[in-house]
This record gives sequence, C-alpha cells and structure tokens, in this order.
Amino acid sequence: MPTEQGNAQGSSPAAASGIGRRGALLAGGAVLAAGIGAAAAELARGDRTDGRSVTAGAGAPPAATAISFHGTRQAGVLAPQQPATHLLAFDLPRTSAAADRKTLREVLGALTGTLATAASEAPADPRLQSGATTRLTSLVGIGPAAAARLRLDVPASLAVLPAFPGDRLDPRRGDGDLLVQLCAADRWTLTVVAELVAAAARSAGAVPRWTQSGFMAPTAPGTTPRNLFGSKDGTANPDRAAADQWVWGPSGAHRDGTVLVYRRIHMDVAGFGALPEGKRDRVIGRRAGDGSPLSGTAEHDEPDVYAKNPDGSYVIPATAHVRLASPRLDRGARMLRRSYSYDDGPDDRGLLFCAFMRDLNQFVRVQERLATRDALNPFVQHRASAVAYVLPGAGKSGTLGDGLWT
Amino acid sequence: MPTEQGNAQGSSPAAASGIGRRGALLAGGAVLAAGIGAAAAELARGDRTDGRSVTAGAGAPPAATAISFHGTRQAGVLAPQQPATHLLAFDLPRTSAAADRKTLREVLGALTGTLATAASEAPADPRLQSGATTRLTSLVGIGPAAAARLRLDVPASLAVLPAFPGDRLDPRRGDGDLLVQLCAADRWTLTVVAELVAAAARSAGAVPRWTQSGFMAPTAPGTTPRNLFGSKDGTANPDRAAADQWVWGPSGAHRDGTVLVYRRIHMDVAGFGALPEGKRDRVIGRRAGDGSPLSGTAEHDEPDVYAKNPDGSYVIPATAHVRLASPRLDRGARMLRRSYSYDDGPDDRGLLFCAFMRDLNQFVRVQERLATRDALNPFVQHRASAVAYVLPGAGKSGTLGDGLWT
Ligand code: HEM
Ligand code: HEM
Repeated sequence: MPTEQGNAQGSSPAAASGIGRRGALLAGGAVLAAGIGAAAAELARGDRTDGRSVTAGAGAPPAATAISFHGTRQAGVLAPQQPATHLLAFDLPRTSAAADRKTLREVLGALTGTLATAASEAPADPRLQSGATTRLTSLVGIGPAAAARLRLDVPASLAVLPAFPGDRLDPRRGDGDLLVQLCAADRWTLTVVAELVAAAARSAGAVPRWTQSGFMAPTAPGTTPRNLFGSKDGTANPDRAAADQWVWGPSGAHRDGTVLVYRRIHMDVAGFGALPEGKRDRVIGRRAGDGSPLSGTAEHDEPDVYAKNPDGSYVIPATAHVRLASPRLDRGARMLRRSYSYDDGPDDRGLLFCAFMRDLNQFVRVQERLATRDALNPFVQHRASAVAYVLPGAGKSGTLGDGLWT
Repeated sequence: MPTEQGNAQGSSPAAASGIGRRGALLAGGAVLAAGIGAAAAELARGDRTDGRSVTAGAGAPPAATAISFHGTRQAGVLAPQQPATHLLAFDLPRTSAAADRKTLREVLGALTGTLATAASEAPADPRLQSGATTRLTSLVGIGPAAAARLRLDVPASLAVLPAFPGDRLDPRRGDGDLLVQLCAADRWTLTVVAELVAAAARSAGAVPRWTQSGFMAPTAPGTTPRNLFGSKDGTANPDRAAADQWVWGPSGAHRDGTVLVYRRIHMDVAGFGALPEGKRDRVIGRRAGDGSPLSGTAEHDEPDVYAKNPDGSYVIPATAHVRLASPRLDRGARMLRRSYSYDDGPDDRGLLFCAFMRDLNQFVRVQERLATRDALNPFVQHRASAVAYVLPGAGKSGTLGDGLWT
C-alpha cells in the first residue's frame, strides 16, 4: 500500500507522512472493526497534531478543515463516513467508441476541476461560503458497460451484475457509465455541488441518468450508525489490514482503486418493526440494542457461526443475515460497507447499500446466499443497482482516470 | 403577550421566567431583524445560565438539550430555525361533520402524545437514542376547508387562498385538513419522527395527503441563511414587537396561534445564475454578497423604497422583489418568513416558502403585487400551496387544539 501521500487530510503536516491516511481509514465509525485494539483506535482518532482532526469517526461534528480532494485514493472512500450523501450517474452519448473515449476524458477533466475546487478551503460558489467549510468528499467511478465498450483499463472483475432472485430493479434508477458519489456534513452542500457537478459533466458531453440522496443517523464518534430497522449497521467492517487485502486493488495499476456496489434497497420498516424483538434479533443474528452477535456479548465480538445451543440448533440461526454474509463462509473475504438511509416518501424508505471491494465477486457470492435464504428477505426489496470501478485518486497535477487509457 | 410559560426551553430554570421564550424568538438568525440592537441580540443568545443554550440562532450546532414540546406557543414557530424540515399533510375522512370532529380530536390527541415524546429527553424510539438529542421541534395546524366544514374556532382570516397569476399548483402536493411541520438538526430524525407521526395520525383516522422535505444552508449563529439563488433570505423579518403585532394572534383565543402560508416555489437556478450580478441584485433589490439593500450599505439597513438616483429612477427598481414586498406599501405589516430549500431532483429545486402571520391577507396583498410585477417571476413558479392555522401550544396537561371546539 503506497503511503507517499496522505489523503482526506487537508494541508496538515501529518498529511505528508502517510499516517494521516491510515488514521482516516481506521477512524470511521464504520471501519472500527472487531479486533482493533484500543491503542489502534486511539491512534486513529488522535494522530493529528494540529487539533483539527478530520479523523474523528462517523458522525463527528463538522471540523473546521476542508477534506482535500487530492490524494492517491479518493476521499469519498477513505474519509470517515459523513452524515449526508448524494449520488449522480451519467451516461456517455454512445456515438463511436473513439468519440466516447474523448468525451469521457473531457468529463473526467471537468469533474476533477469541479470537485477539487468545491472541496477546497475556498470553493468558488458563494453558496458554499457560509463560514463552515463544505467538508465535501467525493468519489468518481466508471460503470462496467462503458469500461467494456471503450476498452478501459479496469479490474478484471468489473462486470454487470447477474440478476438475483427477488430483484425488482428499476433501470431508470440504476446503472450508468459514470458514477459520482458526494458526501458532506449537510444536504445543502450536496445540492449545490450536485448542481455544479451536473453542469460540468453535461457541458463536457455526459448525459444525466439518475440521482439519489441519502443520510446517516446521528452517530457519536467511534460508534456505529443505525439503519431504519434500528440495527447498528457497519459493525463488522474490515480493519486496515483486511481492507488492504479485500477492499483496495488488485495490486498494480488498480492498487488505489476499488469496486463499488450500490443497491437501493427498499425496507418494510413497519413490517420488520411488528416482529417481537427476539425474532428481529434472530433475523439479523445480532441484538438490536447493543449490536452484539447472538453468539457473543459485545458489539465487536466476531459472530461465531458454529456456536450451538444445547438442543443442537445454531445460536446464530441458519438464515440469519450475519451468518449468510459471514466472511467465514467466504475464505475471510470482507467488503467495506458505508451505507446510507434514504427517504423518498412514506412508501419508499430504505437503505442505499454502498460496499467497496477489490473483486466484484465478493458481492456476488454473498448476495447469492442472501437472495435465496436471508431471513431479512420478506422485509427488503432491491429496487435499483449500480456497479462502478472507483478510480485511484488524483494528485495536485493529475486528473481522475489518468490510468484508464492504456 | 402572555409570558407565564417559557417554550423551546426544556427544563431550564430560565424557562419558567418567560425570558427564555423571548430569547428564543429573538435569537433565530431568521428573526434578527433590522433595528435589533447589539444588546438585544446578546440577550437573545446569552440568556441561558446552564451553559446549554438552545437559543443560539439559526444554524447553531446541535445543543445537548432537547427543545420542549410544551409551551404556550408551538416550538416549531418559536425556536430558532433548524437545518432540516419535513412537512406532512393529512385529510379527515369526510364522513359527517360530527364524525370528523371526533376524528380530528383523536388525531390531535395522538399527535400531542407522539410529538411530545419524540421531542423529549427520552424519546421512546431507539432510533432516536443516538446520544445526540433529536432537537425536534414541531407545529400542528388546521387547514381552512376543515375549519369551515367542522365549524372550528379559528381566526376569521383563515381561508383558502385565491388563485394568483402564474400559479401552477399541484393539488396532490398542497392543501390538507391538517398540517404538521417537523424541524430538527438532521434528516434522520425527521424521517423517523415522520414515520411515528404518520402512524399515529393514521391509526386515529387521518388520511395521509402529501409530504415534503427541505433543508437550510449551514448558517453561522446570528447570520441569515441563503437560498439556492445565493441570496440571504430572511433579513427583513420582524423583531419581537413587530411579531406581537403582525405574527401572533389576533388577541383573545388566538393570541398564541398564527397563520402559516406554505408555497412550494420552483426556482430556475441556472437561469437566474446566468444573469450578470448587477442585474441579479436589481431583481432582488439587495446585493447578493452582503444582503444590503441597494439603497443602503449594511444588511440590516431598512430598504428605502423612495430613494432615487440622480436621473430620477428608483434606486430599488420598480419591480424589485423587496420593493413589492415592502412593509412600507402595506402599513408596516410584516410576516415571519422561515423558508427552506428543497431538492427533489435535478429539475425540481427551489424554496419551501413558509411564512407566519396574524392575518392571511398580509400574504394575499403581497402576493398579488408579486404575482403580477415581481422581476423574480421569470425565474420562479409556485407549484403547491397550503394554509393552516397554527394552533396555540399545549401545556404539560393539555392537548393541541383544546380551543377549537367552542
Ligand atoms: C436493507 C438490507 C440490509 C440490511 C438491513 C442489513 C443489515 C445488516 C446488519 C444489521 C448487519 C450486522 C452489523 C454489521 O456487521 O454491520 C449486517 C452485516 C452484514 N451485511 Fe447486511 N444488510 C442488508 C443488506 C446487505 C447486502 C445486500 C449485503 C451484501 C450482499 C450485506 C452484507 C453484509 C455483510 C458482509 C455483513 C457483515 C457480516 C459479518 O462480517 O459478520 N448486507 N447487515
Ligand atoms: C422563490 C421565491 C422567493 C425568493 C427567492 C425570495 C427571496 C427574497 C429575498 C432575497 C429577500 C430579501 C432578504 C430578506 O429580507 O429576507 C426577500 C424579502 C422578502 N420577501 Fe421574498 N422571496 C421569494 C418569494 C416570496 C413570496 C412568495 C413572498 C410573499 C408573498 C415573499 C415575501 C417577502 C417579504 C415580505 C420580504 C421582506 C421585504 C422587506 O421587508 O424588505 N417572498 N425575499
């Protein structure tokens, strides 16, 4: 893992050392994984010397510093998860492959400039100059169809996802040649920056496809956010070593990239809430109150999928969500989940499942198990889907996607 | 103005003195009006002795205290404007007037309980127990059609608004027998509480009609939020004395109520932004940068609609928004505007205009001038509308709407 440049660290002295970035990865509430010792957690939260740490974990109050756009990895994956998100997808015009390659290059150039400025200490738009900094982070990714058609250098696993049982996908809310995820402390910033991003992408030739906004529960630093079912969601995320193995890469040209799977999952909040609490906990395999696995006592205890009750049944039931999603069923593979909730009206609420992984098949293997057997299935419905190769970051003189054109 | 009970003050000692409530009204960035001296502003922000002031103005960072539901006036009008809003409208079943009166009474009882609990220090729903308090505020109001049909005791001015030139109102997004406005520091809280409110209202017999969410620009305490055109919006709001004359009342049974006008106004952000800055400022009648009127130099200078240029033309042009909306054209009448921005997709962004006034005709008179002549008209379109009588607050043993049934 390259450490020559910090990310998500603004211009602090710590940034150049590489410690900053590691801190940022460790510090998200969402990535404080089982097995991280107190010392590591303290390092993660305390490694800044300027007193203006941006690495204070998911749900941290707005910091005075901007989060730099520039770095070896995009800040939208790396920085601690923020309260609000907004996704925008675009298509290329589908003229010739050569023309679309040219368009894509121009769009990526325009996005690099727009996003770097919007995330800087001095964003150009006066609506972003409220005194509070925007704390904007972003990521830009390339969809599998465009990557194949334009013969771009992306990880070999990048592909259109197979259909899963139960999918009810609306193509007008999913897919796309280009995906942009914005995150910030507040919705206002996202609305304004989304307008700037859309204008930049369109004037460079991209065609808007869909947008989606989401938000996170208020979450104390170092704790795990809850989803609309009331569950802590993000507990079993990879620590830094596991992320290097399972999230970033593969090594070589893609070592600072990752693959994003986005699923817009409708949740039947009333239906799930009508179950007795004990039943709800058996559906998930963890206790709603403290997030502890049914096989353990504390949130960050590793779920033990082999533990049995005296009567021979599994402590974590056979169809419990965390059993079917368990890395133990998948040679230890872990994805980095940074999901948000969405609320598109009284009848359409749920989860914007966002997971980052090295190899798309990590998702496919888990979702194949979930789609057929997950006890959650009666209460959730996948309504849109997108996949993107999240590009490596851009340095101060670089452009996003510099490595695509071989 | 009754001062026997503070509002928006939780359980602080200051609450009982009545100072608290005055502070809360003064302190909203939105109500720091022209003419408020520095001393008053300081009082407004510093009148709490427990170090946990909730009266720190629009855009203040989340406080540790909850904002009490109980008080002589509803906290959703009184407390400083908060970053996020969510409106819900309901209809009554329209069976007989007698049956609907009974239903309304039950709905108001259910809402009183639900909103008081959700806003308390110990909300029942675990999803509201993040450690941060919800800072929920709310208001409940009665629509004019229901008030007339059920012969409720509401202010005489309450009526269905006339049609204005240029209106493009979608009835599915407006009107309603019952209006609930929720405000909080974050969207999560609103989504969860909206679910609880909808469940309570439905189980008592109300029929969901529409919902709408909105948000405010991050705003430093004591400053004015900006709208999506980039203008400071809320500068010329009434101070406390003017609010007692023009916002609350009329006196008697309604002295602690007020009338809300809600307009969902689409804004053509790109079109307005394409005007040169000088032209934009002449459309509004104020300078975008600091919000100062063209006739003055500082934001809180009163716009002088009589000031002329050497060539005899008005300094604030004849069709400028602030001229046509000026209290000087209306015997000094002022409404309290607490608008939010909305973003319902790339092609539908704008303003949730929310204004509180004693007499609905204050709005009608201004909007008649604006609808025909406002230089803003090419860039805005009214797409939904609602009116409600915002009920007086409920004390700890009372129920919202106790005064309706005479
Ligand atoms: C609305 C749908 C979903 C809900 C409500 C949900 C909820 C949860 C909850 C509460 C946990 C336990 C806490 C944690 O470790 O984060 C969990 C774990 C997990 N979920 Fe989901 N999830 C959903 C969909 C998915 C999907 C679609 C996938 C991937 C295909 C997935 C993969 C995982 C993984 C890998 C874990 C960690 C398992 C472990 O390492 O113990 N989830 N989920
Ligand atoms: C999207 C539509 C609108 C926009 C962008 C807008 C914007 C503004 C701005 C920038 C100001 C000056 C700053 C301030 O005093 O707050 C203002 C003032 C005002 N506006 Fe609007 N406004 C809109 C719609 C309306 C409507 C529908 C009404 C009522 C019918 C209204 C009534 C007023 C009033 C009463 C003032 C204060 C005038 C004064 O006392 O100087 N506005 N508005």
